[in-house]
Amino acid sequence: MQVLKNILIVGGTHGNELTGVKFVEKWGIRSEEIQALCPGAQVKFLLANPEAVLLCRRYKDKDLNRSFSGESLASAEPVYEIQRAKEINALYGEKGEKTKTDFIFDIHNTEANMGFCLILSARDPFAMRASAELTHEFPKTRIYYQPEPRAASPYLGTIAKADICLEAGPQSHGTIQAELFETTEKMLLRYLELAELWNQGILQTMPLRKVEVYTQFRDVDFIRDAGGRIQTMIHPSLQNRDFEELRPGAPLFRTFDGKDIPYQGAHSVFPIFINEAAYYEKGIAMSLTLKTEEFW
Amino acid sequence: MQVLKNILIVGGTHGNELTGVKFVEKWGIRSEEIQALCPGAQVKFLLANPEAVLLCRRYKDKDLNRSFSGESLASAEPVYEIQRAKEINALYGEKGEKTKTDFIFDIHNTEANMGFCLILSARDPFAMRASAELTHEFPKTRIYYQPEPRAASPYLGTIAKADICLEAGPQSHGTIQAELFETTEKMLLRYLELAELWNQGILQTMPLRKVEVYTQFRDVDFIRDAGGRIQTMIHPSLQNRDFEELRPGAPLFRTFDGKDIPYQGAHSVFPIFINEAAYYEKGIAMSLTLKTEEFW
Repeated sequence: MQVLKNILIVGGTHGNELTGVKFVEKWGIRSEEIQALCPGAQVKFLLANPEAVLLCRRYKDKDLNRSFSGESLASAEPVYEIQRAKEINALYGEKGEKTKTDFIFDIHNTEANMGFCLILSARDPFAMRASAELTHEFPKTRIYYQPEPRAASPYLGTIAKADICLEAGPQSHGTIQAELFETTEKMLLRYLELAELWNQGILQTMPLRKVEVYTQFRDVDFIRDAGGRIQTMIHPSLQNRDFEELRPGAPLFRTFDGKDIPYQGAHSVFPIFINEAAYYEKGIAMSLTLKTEEFW
Repeated sequence: MQVLKNILIVGGTHGNELTGVKFVEKWGIRSEEIQALCPGAQVKFLLANPEAVLLCRRYKDKDLNRSFSGESLASAEPVYEIQRAKEINALYGEKGEKTKTDFIFDIHNTEANMGFCLILSARDPFAMRASAELTHEFPKTRIYYQPEPRAASPYLGTIAKADICLEAGPQSHGTIQAELFETTEKMLLRYLELAELWNQGILQTMPLRKVEVYTQFRDVDFIRDAGGRIQTMIHPSLQNRDFEELRPGAPLFRTFDGKDIPYQGAHSVFPIFINEAAYYEKGIAMSLTLKTEEFW
């Protein structure tokens, strides 16, 4: 059994996602209370992108949460976020087998109606068991599995042996909502209790939980003109319907002249990150997932 | 009777408020269809802050919609928005009695749950009559009266003889929602029809309408620490409750430790722009209004 000795809780990877910024601001100075929940591990806090927090923008020059691939960490590009990623990797990595950090919780917000979305980048045993518990303990909590080759993955969490990215929404970037903050807080403190149960070998003996797993299938962009300007909007019947079934032939987009454009896939999918502002520039109108039932 | 000869429809005063950007993009090239609704006036379109639209940010250097006071228009400050304000004022003003523009419709979005908010900066007879009609024809449509000395007012609309600012929400900045776009479009086209009825002297003879008027009372900021960091959140019972009554003693804020802070005013108010992201930097957690019933 692999014990979690070093846990890192990260906020402000995106400077305008305030739940994590405020979580780290609040709990980073109360380490004794946090340690008491999980005495078997050392728990640290990181405000990942302080420059972006000051600007209250997603990033200063480049998305920090796309700057942790092996290639990016080897880059000498004189860009704030690239340099900051290398700094974070030196402190809490180095990314790879010998990293100093066993587990990262990275706190994010989305403007999409996604509730509490637990993003797993790999099938890590603790991440799976603990997240399965949370989906049963907290309402509107879902699991999104987004597998990628770890070395190539650009996400901050991948500098640890394993990680969970917690996406809370809907919340407009640059704002904070009390209910989302308070629930995110309860979930993270519960994760730490579960880490302690894991370190004591107890979580492993608890009965498996049935979970719905939403696995990344593919991203879909808006239809755009030659200049990159969007020529469609999310169809009104799809707005705010994250994690709901989208069947072939159902409306996907609407043009500015009121014409409906259907989803032309061969099978049902479950869209998430529908109409997330930060993804317009990435060419993503939504991410399509496939839904399975598993026992974790 | 004052006839509306020159009407200007403005979008993109804030570059990440996409309803207006897309409205101007769509209708700016269909001037014949627009002219047919309102043959008695010349209708023009303006994308007010194209640099901010390209960046998909509220502004590049400074808020354009705070750059139209007499003082600001006389400034030589080498800042993009100051220069752009002077350019717009030269084309469609000059601000004052002799301005070339009779009426401006300026299209905005808010992340607050405000529906369709018609902001009147003055008690202009056409603005009042036409807006009163719209509140009866469209659901979730309300009138916000924000009087200011016109010469000192920093808003773009004040370079015309009269103006309405249409705020559609909730919509996260940098995104567009089909339903909001389509309703905003219907409302603006209806305003143009009503302008034609006004120019023909018909609107003036129609029966007065009972309206609820929300008049600016005062702005309220979050509680902050010495460094300006917010120490409170909008109370969960208030989030999304724009235009609803807030009574003395009712919870206003919640601290990050879960303590409730009540509203300590002497009388009921009706908060709007609750938790609008763009107003955090302006020191506004919400604007308090007073509600009256009038016949317009």
